Amino acid sequence: MSEIPITSESKSQPVIAIVGAGFGGLAAAKGLRKQNARVVLIDRTNHHLFQPLLYQVATATLAPADIAAPIRQVLARNKNTEVILAEVRGIDRDRRQLLLDVAGHGEETLSYDYLVVATGVRHSYFGHEEFAKNAPGLKALTDATSIRARILKAFEMAESEPDARRRQQLLTFVLVGAGPTGVEMAGAIAELRRFTLRREFRRIDPNYARIILIEAGPRVLATFAPDLSSKAEKRLGQLGVEVMTNARVEDVDETGVTIGGRKIESRTVIWTAGVEPSPAAAWLAAAPDRAGRVKVQQDCSIPGHPEIFVVGDTSNFEENGKPLPGVAQVAMQQGRYVAKVLRARLQGRTPPGPFRYFDIGSMAVIGRGFAVLEVGKIRLRGYPAWLIWATIHLAYLAQFGNRLRVLTQWAWTYFTHQSGSRLIVEPLTETPRAKSSSA
Amino acid sequence: MSEIPITSESKSQPVIAIVGAGFGGLAAAKGLRKQNARVVLIDRTNHHLFQPLLYQVATATLAPADIAAPIRQVLARNKNTEVILAEVRGIDRDRRQLLLDVAGHGEETLSYDYLVVATGVRHSYFGHEEFAKNAPGLKALTDATSIRARILKAFEMAESEPDARRRQQLLTFVLVGAGPTGVEMAGAIAELRRFTLRREFRRIDPNYARIILIEAGPRVLATFAPDLSSKAEKRLGQLGVEVMTNARVEDVDETGVTIGGRKIESRTVIWTAGVEPSPAAAWLAAAPDRAGRVKVQQDCSIPGHPEIFVVGDTSNFEENGKPLPGVAQVAMQQGRYVAKVLRARLQGRTPPGPFRYFDIGSMAVIGRGFAVLEVGKIRLRGYPAWLIWATIHLAYLAQFGNRLRVLTQWAWTYFTHQSGSRLIVEPLTETPRAKSSSA
Repeated sequence: MSEIPITSESKSQPVIAIVGAGFGGLAAAKGLRKQNARVVLIDRTNHHLFQPLLYQVATATLAPADIAAPIRQVLARNKNTEVILAEVRGIDRDRRQLLLDVAGHGEETLSYDYLVVATGVRHSYFGHEEFAKNAPGLKALTDATSIRARILKAFEMAESEPDARRRQQLLTFVLVGAGPTGVEMAGAIAELRRFTLRREFRRIDPNYARIILIEAGPRVLATFAPDLSSKAEKRLGQLGVEVMTNARVEDVDETGVTIGGRKIESRTVIWTAGVEPSPAAAWLAAAPDRAGRVKVQQDCSIPGHPEIFVVGDTSNFEENGKPLPGVAQVAMQQGRYVAKVLRARLQGRTPPGPFRYFDIGSMAVIGRGFAVLEVGKIRLRGYPAWLIWATIHLAYLAQFGNRLRVLTQWAWTYFTHQSGSRLIVEPLTETPRAKSSSA
Repeated sequence: MSEIPITSESKSQPVIAIVGAGFGGLAAAKGLRKQNARVVLIDRTNHHLFQPLLYQVATATLAPADIAAPIRQVLARNKNTEVILAEVRGIDRDRRQLLLDVAGHGEETLSYDYLVVATGVRHSYFGHEEFAKNAPGLKALTDATSIRARILKAFEMAESEPDARRRQQLLTFVLVGAGPTGVEMAGAIAELRRFTLRREFRRIDPNYARIILIEAGPRVLATFAPDLSSKAEKRLGQLGVEVMTNARVEDVDETGVTIGGRKIESRTVIWTAGVEPSPAAAWLAAAPDRAGRVKVQQDCSIPGHPEIFVVGDTSNFEENGKPLPGVAQVAMQQGRYVAKVLRARLQGRTPPGPFRYFDIGSMAVIGRGFAVLEVGKIRLRGYPAWLIWATIHLAYLAQFGNRLRVLTQWAWTYFTHQSGSRLIVEPLTETPRAKSSSA
């Protein structure tokens, strides 16, 4: 094990290590451009992922490359920033050292002066890890391509299945959890079934596929206003999605899910129910909240360690006695804020006041041309909300040069109903990747 | 094991089974549209792959979805055609039965009246299967994404490699075989190094990467006229590719290749040297030629079995005492021809005369804006040849609705040098897929 070498010109500079190139980490790195510091951004993939559109990869509308940008490319002009493809193994707070597993090199250490932890969340089975095998979740690109293969293979297998009951199992898609991801996926599978796959099968009619959205709580999109929830539910019904609320999943196996002792037979169950934070609290030996997130102070640092910041979904920032929601906007704004704090410290200026979250609202899209949108007291639904949704998402992707591709693809799909990326890329004989990678 | 069920309306129709949805199989299926027959197209993937552009996926210019179209979508309007996701396990000529491994169902049989085998080739190590692990070849989409990950990871690993010698190993890319694939990949890696990755690394300069193209024969692009070979070689030199001709690879291990007793150290060796046919000859108990291809008669059927046709790369059709080359055009023309023969037989008409190959020439592209092209006695090189190459390839992709995407991407890459799909999608900790899938 050795210390990661540094370039000669940066030896006298303070080192700012940022772990995670999601919305939070990337915003922090960008905010430190031109600072007299050596910024080291660590991620276990080579790309920044636009997670809000990941469900469109899982449902074959967009290709992986449409929503992922190489981190190096995004930060090419940040001359003070290095990117390292590595996974965090541990953090030594007292020695100010990261223990990394660097791609191709094994364990190495990295000494830092400042540390920004932005490692996000992974999907959670709330203690039922045995569900993972039969109900994959959606967080990384590999999850999305693996779920895409499962959905497409289910139609393929149904086409050559002589037994009626097994055929119906194959044509039943269950989504567990009716938050934005569950609702958006349900809508997207409904459109795939109704339009994209239409006329392509000879023995089955994809329209007979059932899509069941299961929610433990009393309504879909629980974080939205109740009237938007009911609008969303109505729209899902129009698309042919069966919504079951107040339904708690008791078991998941390879033939379906059990709810209230009753079995819903399905060969494709997708877990959209919940997330748990990265092990940041354990790495930092910091006090976690009940959900496992690191509690942070008003400047996003952890108590007793003003040099360590935790931002985004893996942190718990309390505002008015409640933690901020785990959404992209919080992570981005916190990342930007921490960069501002660090700029002030590096330049010996007075640091800014406490972090304040500016809520720009939330959105969920349900099929083609329909979305719900809530900004403070403003609530919108239907086509206008969808246009706003599409514009905002394109504007964000534009930063990474993916706008043209996504715009082209969306326009194409919108008018032709042809998917952008309907590929099963796994060899037939191989175990689906989801089984091993999400276990 | 059971017989694949047939739809009730097709029980009285003759069954035409087509194995393989490459250029040959797809052309045959398309040519049988509107015939009073049940056409069953079997492939082990769900997509038709435009192999001539596969190297652009391996070098991160195009995304997999840009060059792959779902077979069902392509044939949606062929109402008499079913598509089955399955692998062939064997063929019983006498009982006219295919033994298939159907996705999700295991072994099933399919009885046919006519059979078209179009199963193509895979890359070959000429008896050195032990090379496969360290020198992956390029035939399927998974090969391309796995090679893409290897190339990109080599740059990532070099960036954090303190040892100069290992760093140079990581920055040395060896291509074994200077046919069109080897030449095109060498050009594409050269551009990736010189333009796309420029300014993105802090410790290495991607420009110092070596690209070595090794050819056992006396010149690159041996199937082209000698003056085009030398033009191509000159262009490769301008791009910084080192070409070694008359060089036979004696060994490949994880640290490089051995040629004439001398070791070239490299951590990324790619096999572009040769192909071998699918096991069609063994399935059919038919006489193979020395390369393992099935010898076919003047109507592409095999001796003694007028109901069995073999087309494309896996067949040997002799014209003027020489087998036709293993290129897309031969497969497409043979597929179309066999459909014509079958149409005549189904309708009780006189079948057409022997198959005649119409050579529309060959092309290879070497980096941005340069290609060589040979049609009969016409030879072109440079930008005009590249424009023709781009037009023809776009025209072909247009049939599958991918034209807009590819055109957008090429235009974007041409002007910005930004790659379309520079993703490493494998988890860091997992063994690269190439190791297991190409072994």
